[in-house]
Amino acid sequence: MVALRLQIRVSADVRIGHGKIQLLEGVDRYGSISAAARALGMSYRRGWELIDHMNTAFGRPVAVGTTGSTGGAELTDLGRDIVARWRLLEQKVSQIATDDVAYFDELLQDPSEQSS
Amino acid sequence: MVALRLQIRVSADVRIGHGKIQLLEGVDRYGSISAAARALGMSYRRGWELIDHMNTAFGRPVAVGTTGSTGGAELTDLGRDIVARWRLLEQKVSQIATDDVAYFDELLQDPSEQSS
Repeated sequence: MVALRLQIRVSADVRIGHGKIQLLEGVDRYGSISAAARALGMSYRRGWELIDHMNTAFGRPVAVGTTGSTGGAELTDLGRDIVARWRLLEQKVSQIATDDVAYFDELLQDPSEQSS
Repeated sequence: MVALRLQIRVSADVRIGHGKIQLLEGVDRYGSISAAARALGMSYRRGWELIDHMNTAFGRPVAVGTTGSTGGAELTDLGRDIVARWRLLEQKVSQIATDDVAYFDELLQDPSEQSS
């Protein structure tokens, strides 16, 4: 099944999409950027880079280190708002795009899902 | 202003998005893959690669060479359908996402657009 993905494009270098939102959700779930990165098959370093890019892009932190713990992190209110807004938008889009996704799904086949 | 972009994801390697659709539109407009690529600041080789990827992904050509001309190309019915379907989907999404795009636009600033 094909997936419809959204992306907010600020510039060629600054884009917010599925991967970054998943990372934020992981931080919220695991309380740690490294654990969130690991759960997405991403290096610790890459996870931090993406969070850092978001902090810069939004001009305020989306996640911060938790005091008193080693390596712990949590979303800020901004980080949580972004995730919530994104998921609602995805839901709205997915509701109106059902026919279009089906159209592309019928045309596009993932070779790895095909049986011979 | 931030832009909301759509992407149809088949697999990690196979994705249809803004760039490929623009390329198809360019082929339709200019009657040539190289001219379409040039208009997007893309190399001739890259333009052909993307068309080739799409032909493979859809299992049928989205664009074909025009007989009797050198280097000319045109969209197939499939290619035209894909562009039309995509643009309609974009319109529908943009109508329901106005508030969400404004939300992200207020938070995200393109540094290149900021004056000091």
